Amino acid sequence: MRRGEALEISRHVASEVRKAVLGIAGKKEAGLEVGIGKDGTPTKKIDMVAEEVALSILKQYDVKVISEESGVVGESETIVALDPVDGTFNATRGVPIYSIALCFSRGEKLEDTFFGYVMNLATGVEYWADSVAYKNGEQIRVSTENAIKCNAIMYYPRKEYGFKRMRIFGSAALEICFVADGSFDCFIDVRDIQGKGYLRVYDVAASLYIAEKAGAVVTDERGRSLGNKRFTMEERFKVVVANEKLHPKLLKVL
Amino acid sequence: MRRGEALEISRHVASEVRKAVLGIAGKKEAGLEVGIGKDGTPTKKIDMVAEEVALSILKQYDVKVISEESGVVGESETIVALDPVDGTFNATRGVPIYSIALCFSRGEKLEDTFFGYVMNLATGVEYWADSVAYKNGEQIRVSTENAIKCNAIMYYPRKEYGFKRMRIFGSAALEICFVADGSFDCFIDVRDIQGKGYLRVYDVAASLYIAEKAGAVVTDERGRSLGNKRFTMEERFKVVVANEKLHPKLLKVL
Repeated sequence: MRRGEALEISRHVASEVRKAVLGIAGKKEAGLEVGIGKDGTPTKKIDMVAEEVALSILKQYDVKVISEESGVVGESETIVALDPVDGTFNATRGVPIYSIALCFSRGEKLEDTFFGYVMNLATGVEYWADSVAYKNGEQIRVSTENAIKCNAIMYYPRKEYGFKRMRIFGSAALEICFVADGSFDCFIDVRDIQGKGYLRVYDVAASLYIAEKAGAVVTDERGRSLGNKRFTMEERFKVVVANEKLHPKLLKVL
Repeated sequence: MRRGEALEISRHVASEVRKAVLGIAGKKEAGLEVGIGKDGTPTKKIDMVAEEVALSILKQYDVKVISEESGVVGESETIVALDPVDGTFNATRGVPIYSIALCFSRGEKLEDTFFGYVMNLATGVEYWADSVAYKNGEQIRVSTENAIKCNAIMYYPRKEYGFKRMRIFGSAALEICFVADGSFDCFIDVRDIQGKGYLRVYDVAASLYIAEKAGAVVTDERGRSLGNKRFTMEERFKVVVANEKLHPKLLKVL
């Protein structure tokens, strides 16, 4: 699959999911629990609606999909990690920070990724990356801030790190894009779930690729590359995303 | 002034400010520093544009305005605390969480408030309260969650409190409305600036009134009423906002 085709597919999926989701976001029905997803957490109606729309389109292509609710669907050498709604809690409440994320890979490992796409479903703002990263078609770049006294997004702080400003918006896919476009200086998620990270591959693969192509350094909390991480339901992530000057300073204070 | 008139004025101001702001939000020029506000912090262009539009309308009415950039403007028994853009940082980056807040009072004290209005300028969603509280015209009510393991908004945590979910969106006026409508269970800001709180009267007066009318208990970090707080540029606030069952439990863990 070419990157141009990945962009085309992503846009088709995102625009159809957006139409389906905008009608129920912020309404009571959006938050109804309608089952248990393959990730082991309750599926909300808005997740189900979004994933049904996304899968019905993706099934028309030669791809293997890994997604939050349905797990692995299809068989192909091209893998698509799909989070139909990242930030479900916000979506159910009408808080306009929730997104769809699609990550395209030629192999089982994160380093095999060749395209990433994220759309804020509330606003329609798009981020994607092929060999460079874009927001609404314009090239983006990480910030040049190199002091810990920076604008940080962090899940969850356990002490005062001396950030200038700290935010937690509730959609990791979108928040990592806020670092890619220089709106914020770093994204840190070092939550620990039984010795592993909290984030899943479909939550972060697309936006981590976008951030890298925008100049970010992306590692775990100990500075190790995430390239060997796998596109599986079991894989978990701790991530530190920042420009190359700020990144080592963050690792030191964590 | 009647409450109906306060709603009419608020809507007029908010819709005109929204038009002016949407054109520059997320663009570089929005964040240009164009002076120092009466609050002592740099004024960004988007703040200046918004306040000019708001004041040009408010000056047509018999009100005394207290606002972030211009300080006190006019003389009247009816006070309007105005924050033309609450969440300027988000606005300059195009993150769709920033708002306008207007609070109408018959006297110098917070307890003299008779009307509060907040609009998310990115989305146009409105919150207001006269004798009851509304979101887009429908009556709203705080949640009934009574456990610390709740959905919290907090500036800034210094330890782990055991919340289920914690968010920091960057617009206190709007975030307090998220508690008023039950989207989140509590809003806590106990930041300390030289022994005083961080928030100013124009940041929070409108949304605190909305929250109270939606059933919230509103106090400082020690459980004291804020009714004696004054509509002045100097007044600072620490606030804890939650339903009556959760509120005393929060005071205990803070």
